[in-house]
Amino acid sequence: MLNEFPLKNPMTKEEYKDVAQELKTELSVLQHQIQDAKLPVIILFEGWGAAGKGTLISDMLQNLDPRSFKVHSTLPPTDEDKRRPWLYRHWCGIPEKGRISILDRSWYPEASLARLEDGLSEEVSAERLREINAFEHQLTDDGYLIIKFFLHISQKKQRKRLEKLADNPDTAWRATKLDWSRNKKYDRYCAVFDAMLEATHTPAAPWHILSGQEHYTARYEMYRILTDSIRSALAVKASAKVRKSRKPAAPREMPGFQLVSMPKLAEVTLDKALAQEEYKELLKDRQRQIRELHNRLYKEKVPVIAVYEGWDAAGKGGNIKRLTAALDPRGYEVIPIASPSSTELAHHYLWRFWRALPKDGHVTIFDRTWYGRVMVERIEGFASETEWKRAYREINEFEESLHNWGAVLLKFWLHIDPDEQLRRFQEREAIPEKNWKITAEDWRNRDKWEQYEIAVNDMIRLTSTDFAPWTIIESQDKRYGRIKAMDAFIRAVEEKLD
Amino acid sequence: MLNEFPLKNPMTKEEYKDVAQELKTELSVLQHQIQDAKLPVIILFEGWGAAGKGTLISDMLQNLDPRSFKVHSTLPPTDEDKRRPWLYRHWCGIPEKGRISILDRSWYPEASLARLEDGLSEEVSAERLREINAFEHQLTDDGYLIIKFFLHISQKKQRKRLEKLADNPDTAWRATKLDWSRNKKYDRYCAVFDAMLEATHTPAAPWHILSGQEHYTARYEMYRILTDSIRSALAVKASAKVRKSRKPAAPREMPGFQLVSMPKLAEVTLDKALAQEEYKELLKDRQRQIRELHNRLYKEKVPVIAVYEGWDAAGKGGNIKRLTAALDPRGYEVIPIASPSSTELAHHYLWRFWRALPKDGHVTIFDRTWYGRVMVERIEGFASETEWKRAYREINEFEESLHNWGAVLLKFWLHIDPDEQLRRFQEREAIPEKNWKITAEDWRNRDKWEQYEIAVNDMIRLTSTDFAPWTIIESQDKRYGRIKAMDAFIRAVEEKLD
Repeated sequence: MLNEFPLKNPMTKEEYKDVAQELKTELSVLQHQIQDAKLPVIILFEGWGAAGKGTLISDMLQNLDPRSFKVHSTLPPTDEDKRRPWLYRHWCGIPEKGRISILDRSWYPEASLARLEDGLSEEVSAERLREINAFEHQLTDDGYLIIKFFLHISQKKQRKRLEKLADNPDTAWRATKLDWSRNKKYDRYCAVFDAMLEATHTPAAPWHILSGQEHYTARYEMYRILTDSIRSALAVKASAKVRKSRKPAAPREMPGFQLVSMPKLAEVTLDKALAQEEYKELLKDRQRQIRELHNRLYKEKVPVIAVYEGWDAAGKGGNIKRLTAALDPRGYEVIPIASPSSTELAHHYLWRFWRALPKDGHVTIFDRTWYGRVMVERIEGFASETEWKRAYREINEFEESLHNWGAVLLKFWLHIDPDEQLRRFQEREAIPEKNWKITAEDWRNRDKWEQYEIAVNDMIRLTSTDFAPWTIIESQDKRYGRIKAMDAFIRAVEEKLD
Repeated sequence: MLNEFPLKNPMTKEEYKDVAQELKTELSVLQHQIQDAKLPVIILFEGWGAAGKGTLISDMLQNLDPRSFKVHSTLPPTDEDKRRPWLYRHWCGIPEKGRISILDRSWYPEASLARLEDGLSEEVSAERLREINAFEHQLTDDGYLIIKFFLHISQKKQRKRLEKLADNPDTAWRATKLDWSRNKKYDRYCAVFDAMLEATHTPAAPWHILSGQEHYTARYEMYRILTDSIRSALAVKASAKVRKSRKPAAPREMPGFQLVSMPKLAEVTLDKALAQEEYKELLKDRQRQIRELHNRLYKEKVPVIAVYEGWDAAGKGGNIKRLTAALDPRGYEVIPIASPSSTELAHHYLWRFWRALPKDGHVTIFDRTWYGRVMVERIEGFASETEWKRAYREINEFEESLHNWGAVLLKFWLHIDPDEQLRRFQEREAIPEKNWKITAEDWRNRDKWEQYEIAVNDMIRLTSTDFAPWTIIESQDKRYGRIKAMDAFIRAVEEKLD
């Protein structure tokens, strides 16, 4: 793409002044509409060093109200960043609805530049570019506007600018060794940038190349693209209609993912049980094994993510407790997921789960999870049909990122039958210390058992990928369920460590 | 303190079992009351390596609902952490109301251990211990409960435990070189710990020393102290009454701080002005100077924090814009402060300002600030009288931390008279593009001009410390005000850099 781009296409200062003022005024009006319409906007700048990103951004900021945007300068990942999935910090930084994030460099260097500078393999680079497409697509599907600029200059021009920086004692430190080395290897960098631009030039988030050599042309183009893109995103948002179908059904297929065949809930028998004595022995043994494995996990920096879903009163709490009793408290965290806060609602629904991911070597246990999207949010209508239907794919993409990162991913569905649930509800109501565990909402959910069963079957079918299949934990007998979950934990971790 | 502590005071397993169960049950009841009463709790563990912190914490967690607490293992500060005030990451991590934070090590190592291991001077160590006392005091004043445990063992016992760890291949990595070296220099560490414990054993947040050698005694003591402390904090909270006095007045003095004498607003003359031509020249010159200084700030890693307060329509926005026009967008951020979100309200009021602090070498401009506490919150009654009255001291302590960190701190009060404000309000209402700038609230605030004037005079008097005095910016003539703010910026930064 870069070779074909006309770097020289001059606009004079006068020509620029004639046309730019109108665009700037429009931009300053649009920023208030962005707030009112709760449109989240990401404007990112990539490109050659010394191509003039700073000047362009600075010019744009002069035309925006500081209350509506935030500038992020993305630096190379720190050692701390490297302990999490590489997209983690970028997910954490997405703007909330109605806000503008301006990114001076973004997630791209870690998928492109890193090939030349960090020894990133071609394979991992391609994997990351795919993850970027999924990331950006998930955001734009959720109503985010992403505007991507690439500032291009020639090798000769870049060299001249570096020389100029070096000549001034106040700016000399800005022309680093790395900058000079990049300039010398311009052609190799150009090839990597080209591959990156081509792989990620998507309809949902296209690239806009600007000439870093033509000051006024670049500025004009930037303002034109900004106003055009924002104006049309606002129009789309205003015209969006929620279509409602009578019988919403989950997608039938999941192209691009290898699914593992799973039984339906109705096919699962619930007669498995353990006697107290046998249980005690097994528990002691499994906790010993897990204690040892936790040490090894920590040492070998393997992250573990355990997903706990299941019927109300299926015994998630007690199951989690038996697992964590064997873990060093410095190395695990239980994240209880309640209904989202207003801040969480103002972001993509996966945002809060990304933010809660562990560091490598640590274990995070989610007590309820992102699967709420295709269960409670589907059934209660908190997510629109379009939203929950595309969530299966989004979840698989999310979990694939975790898998690529090297995480052990465990997904437990704690299963009981409606009679057993009734018995436990009644017990909770009868015993004062257990009273806080039962609410009117539990009873309401129980009335929707059949709807939930359909949703759970869809979920298990569509998200049991070869890298993150579900494990159904028969919890009619709590003791059996606890040992089964621990066994699954041990097996998965041992497999990873060996 | 440590020498006098009886390390040997054994309790048998049977004795422990007899008394512990009741305490554990009470704890699990109390945790729900903590949530209901919205009591924020910090439980922190410090002490010798291999003294058994992990085991104690693990035991406690088994008796808590994972939904109500979060464990934080505090590691030594990363390079990224070191670019912010040292308390920054600890402030960011305080729990919200109704939640329990369990800290495996906390802010103490950076004020104590660092003396032996990071070459921290005695002077800075003492300064940090004072900052800790201010930090903890601010939290407990705000209703936080802080429970501090120190796990103590003898040199001999510690050596034995390290040997045991080293003997097991799975745990050998846990007995590090550093652990051995600490054990050898036990006496020197003991002295540092003692100094730390004595300096920070305050009525608001006392230390509890536990014997790391007597397993059951330590556990019992832990549960006893936890339940006692939580029970009494809940009782205090339940009985808290808001006393209301008729004529609340700000404190007269500010012991412990050196105040700079400042004029009252009524004494400030507002006739200073600049002609357009002169202004244009000065603006160009000052922006050039600031551009150069920003380069130097970045290079020498000096952080700058600029506080903008002032009357509505005094011209904060335009003043900030002229300043930022001269700054590289990668190195500054404007933080507009609106009314706090629900998450912000659930923390200490200074929390959101701590979180917004820049990295070293960066400039953060606050458009409205923590001074809202002693202005709008005082006048509108959002803060109780006790709260806003103690805020002057809290703010001075906060700013002293920034000063100790090495920040340049600028505080601008943009001053106009009521007639000029009226003129600007009317102009805003008349011009469609400026319309969004004026709201009914602005008119309501205007009616309270006299109350605000009292509050502003109190604020300027009580928080003009020798390290962070206010600068009154006469903004009747906006041009004059802009140049004066830039001049103050230049002077303060040059002073720091020289």
